Amino acid sequence: MTTVLKLGGSVITEKDRPEAIDRSALERAAASIATIPGRVVVVHGGGSFGHHHAATHGVSTTDGTRDADAVRGIHGAMKRLNEVVVDALADAGVEAVPVHPFSAASRSADGALRLETHPEAAMLDEAFVPVLHGDTVVQTGAGATIVSGDELVVELSAAMDADRVGVCSAVPGVYDVDGNVLDRIEAFDDVADAVGESNATDVTGGMAGKVRELLSLDAPAYVFDIDGLDAFARGEDVGTRIG
Amino acid sequence: MTTVLKLGGSVITEKDRPEAIDRSALERAAASIATIPGRVVVVHGGGSFGHHHAATHGVSTTDGTRDADAVRGIHGAMKRLNEVVVDALADAGVEAVPVHPFSAASRSADGALRLETHPEAAMLDEAFVPVLHGDTVVQTGAGATIVSGDELVVELSAAMDADRVGVCSAVPGVYDVDGNVLDRIEAFDDVADAVGESNATDVTGGMAGKVRELLSLDAPAYVFDIDGLDAFARGEDVGTRIG
Repeated sequence: MTTVLKLGGSVITEKDRPEAIDRSALERAAASIATIPGRVVVVHGGGSFGHHHAATHGVSTTDGTRDADAVRGIHGAMKRLNEVVVDALADAGVEAVPVHPFSAASRSADGALRLETHPEAAMLDEAFVPVLHGDTVVQTGAGATIVSGDELVVELSAAMDADRVGVCSAVPGVYDVDGNVLDRIEAFDDVADAVGESNATDVTGGMAGKVRELLSLDAPAYVFDIDGLDAFARGEDVGTRIG
Repeated sequence: MTTVLKLGGSVITEKDRPEAIDRSALERAAASIATIPGRVVVVHGGGSFGHHHAATHGVSTTDGTRDADAVRGIHGAMKRLNEVVVDALADAGVEAVPVHPFSAASRSADGALRLETHPEAAMLDEAFVPVLHGDTVVQTGAGATIVSGDELVVELSAAMDADRVGVCSAVPGVYDVDGNVLDRIEAFDDVADAVGESNATDVTGGMAGKVRELLSLDAPAYVFDIDGLDAFARGEDVGTRIG
């Protein structure tokens, strides 16, 4: 049983202040994650850590920088957040170890991500819980761009042959046009009106891109908020099931 | 022109105090590295950062740990040292970016290292200077073991098709039996008496293992101390040439 869990940056940080942790939410999330049985991979977003620095330097998933200082700034902020998340998980009894995607990934000129996942596979075999994060990544011809937590979740879920995927976000699920949480999405066309336009490269956090990417996985994915995390950890259907 | 440079942990840290930087040596080394033309990869050892924590937890290149707290302790210390080295290089004008091997490597049950190097190749293409360090690495069946800076230098030199390899260490070169620095070593048998026993897995810092591994490379490697670093950066023969 392998679970890949995304912890949204907006769940564990305070959005309006740079580099501010929402400690009570983080501790609550860590306690829930500690109850997930089997093999677990955690990926967290940038929240008020990564986004702040990325915006300052004008870097996105498609707009790169050749300024090493910008790379160090964004990557360093994400490592600070990652250390806080790993420590909170450790305090909750999780055998958490940090994994920094900048060290293990690159993008081709057309933006395709190449992420090595044999380290994570080895970590799971040895009963560690790898904790990754949205990060910078060097892209051929563009310097360094951003790799989002959502993109990493999709890559890792496929590579680890995950049985369940969880996306713990700021909202309780995917809304329909009337603002009600959908129980299940089986095809993108079912929700295109509600979630809006999307294309294959939209991985920067919009719900449309998230839904499209999660639909591409073999495993069922669930979008829920922190109130749903305990139920997800128990193996229940929660929020919106995608796929 | 691609240069891979190892900066010995004993060169840039004070050996007798845990986690103490030798700042004047580090700044001097950074200024020299800034003058190396072409593509540069830097690898540094653990010195009083990594070795102290590895010894505390009883972890070596062959003895592993399944304690995530031990992994975080050793890896965290090495990341603190790496940040100081990267910052010193940045202050000297080098477009340095940090690379953490734990995120990109694993070992098979027999100890063979699998290290991904496409991120470093992409970094060099985009004019960044990757700065790696000795680290923990997950090994099948053993938890996490140590990967030494020397082992990384050999892997990266081969993978990056380096033209020159430098090993800046605590000694001015490889000594012969009379204590004189050898100009050149072309075969291990030439120095077996002077450097002592070695086998293929001796990569933990002994000179014998270092010589044997460096001889396996296509590129010439030089062993020298910090007084030789400026000359190495200028492309001169310095210390002991191996290969």
